[in-house]
Amino acid sequence: MLRVPYDDLFRALLRAMQRLGLQGERGALCARLFAETTRDGVYTHGLNRFPRFAEMVDNGCIDVSAVPSRVAAAAALERWDGHLGPGNLNAYAAMQRAIELARLHGLGCVALANTNHWMRGGSYGWQAAEAGVFALCWTNTLPNLPPWGAQVPVLGNNPLVVAIPRADGAHVVLDMALSQFSQGALSAYAVRGERLPVPGGYDASGTLTVDAEEINASRRMLPIGYWKGSGLSLTLDLLAAMLSGGLATHQIPRDPMRESGVSQVFVAIDPGSFAARGDLDRIAAGIIESLVAAVPVDPARPVRYPGQQTLMLREENLRLGVPVDPQTWARLLALAG
Amino acid sequence: MLRVPYDDLFRALLRAMQRLGLQGERGALCARLFAETTRDGVYTHGLNRFPRFAEMVDNGCIDVSAVPSRVAAAAALERWDGHLGPGNLNAYAAMQRAIELARLHGLGCVALANTNHWMRGGSYGWQAAEAGVFALCWTNTLPNLPPWGAQVPVLGNNPLVVAIPRADGAHVVLDMALSQFSQGALSAYAVRGERLPVPGGYDASGTLTVDAEEINASRRMLPIGYWKGSGLSLTLDLLAAMLSGGLATHQIPRDPMRESGVSQVFVAIDPGSFAARGDLDRIAAGIIESLVAAVPVDPARPVRYPGQQTLMLREENLRLGVPVDPQTWARLLALAG
Repeated sequence: MLRVPYDDLFRALLRAMQRLGLQGERGALCARLFAETTRDGVYTHGLNRFPRFAEMVDNGCIDVSAVPSRVAAAAALERWDGHLGPGNLNAYAAMQRAIELARLHGLGCVALANTNHWMRGGSYGWQAAEAGVFALCWTNTLPNLPPWGAQVPVLGNNPLVVAIPRADGAHVVLDMALSQFSQGALSAYAVRGERLPVPGGYDASGTLTVDAEEINASRRMLPIGYWKGSGLSLTLDLLAAMLSGGLATHQIPRDPMRESGVSQVFVAIDPGSFAARGDLDRIAAGIIESLVAAVPVDPARPVRYPGQQTLMLREENLRLGVPVDPQTWARLLALAG
Repeated sequence: MLRVPYDDLFRALLRAMQRLGLQGERGALCARLFAETTRDGVYTHGLNRFPRFAEMVDNGCIDVSAVPSRVAAAAALERWDGHLGPGNLNAYAAMQRAIELARLHGLGCVALANTNHWMRGGSYGWQAAEAGVFALCWTNTLPNLPPWGAQVPVLGNNPLVVAIPRADGAHVVLDMALSQFSQGALSAYAVRGERLPVPGGYDASGTLTVDAEEINASRRMLPIGYWKGSGLSLTLDLLAAMLSGGLATHQIPRDPMRESGVSQVFVAIDPGSFAARGDLDRIAAGIIESLVAAVPVDPARPVRYPGQQTLMLREENLRLGVPVDPQTWARLLALAG
């Protein structure tokens, strides 16, 4: 593993974006979202994801020139069309619009059709929290999760993000797929030859297993909470497709290189007109304090909240350099020209 | 088990409510919500829950005369105070107000503080779906769930409800606690002496177990998806307490007979002003069709969607009579006078 200064990573990504046809502010934002994802330690969805992003520009799934447009509105609720533009730019624009609607109406919702993989979902949670608002957002995906009681994947693992702003910047940002392990996590365990800490899916015979390779082979990932995550995945897909008017999971191409046209929902909530920031912050502090004070199972591993590790890794990676895979980094530099 | 006609169950509950001091429409609605819960097969939260409800009126936790009031508003976002009134009446009023806000603004959110246990959360999902709108709602609870990595319960199992309306009344309504098994489900397994189908928590030594009694003794229920449900529970508590200005889980009395002053959030979404009902319905039908067509693990058990069983049980219980425990039924008749 190699560590490179954050600015070097950003500039290389920026030049690569320009080579892909993403100019000006759009190229800068797209590069920043990729670079920040790696900076924050979500290695599967930052630089390591860029080669696939570039290939999907080449194969026509991602239209770098497409910008999202509003197709319908009802006060605080809007429907947008992503026109198959870059997924992270579309998602960022949708959350930005949801935040504007929340400032106007107390809360706002943007349902986005015809978009592409948003890369790290947590990016849009941090975006809202940095703007001082609460947010929920989710995306559907290609079919990769068998419903409870089924042998074949017809649901998506539909990542869900929940963000709570705190005055000191220590925002709580939950970013989780509804499979017990994300596909990125499964692949990482498989590459390392490590067993999963808890069952993550089924082997070819239909038995629960901790072997990531068996799960990749059977295509039977386990939803969180068995039947519960299966039900939650279904309802998030229904909400995303119906509110946006876009594709549902069962209509999205099953080839990961062709996973395009997904549907997403962005909700922002701003109680700022009636709730004092200090009062909100005291409530959050009390909750977090009671959590981190809970007697741990392992005294060496205190209880953490979602987002806490992100800030630690961000600080470390800015200080020591951002860890990159040497081959992927070389490939990026070649692409960046 | 005894089966009684739905109308008899409703009328007995109505008289019992009147004896508790709930008159007129409020008594009728409270009785209906209890009766419908049993009619729909959620036996833990209908008639079987009524004795505890009556005791908590007696011990002062539930104020039958209290009605909720709005304390702050920002267009589509409102804060209400439940004044420790009956939890199901407060929740019904809050969802009704969220639906009104959604009709006006596209979506609406009511955050409710100082309320009581809402009994069956799914009731408010069905309420929204019957009104033709989408809904999400959740509640915090007393501390009953250890955060991931902790030995002691400082989070709640915070039930979450998601509702999707369909034109034919076959609404999709997900109603799930964030523990792998609700407390009612654990107790039912313990009473029957049955093993859980999957691990539901830890025994006294900290090992995962399928023994419901061991989990009740250790007070260490398992969150759905291990660390994932733990994170989701935390964020739902943060949202509920911060948006409502009410109590967080760590502040709610740990004695189930004193579990009072909980916080809840009700979100309703109405795209009706720009989306044709028929178009929405076709999207939903396509998703449900792809789900129920999935090859099942057990050919005798086709894949189902959340809410499907509710409609089957409702039909059966209206036809054959609603199943009641003879002792609880006798106790209700005595209370009803």
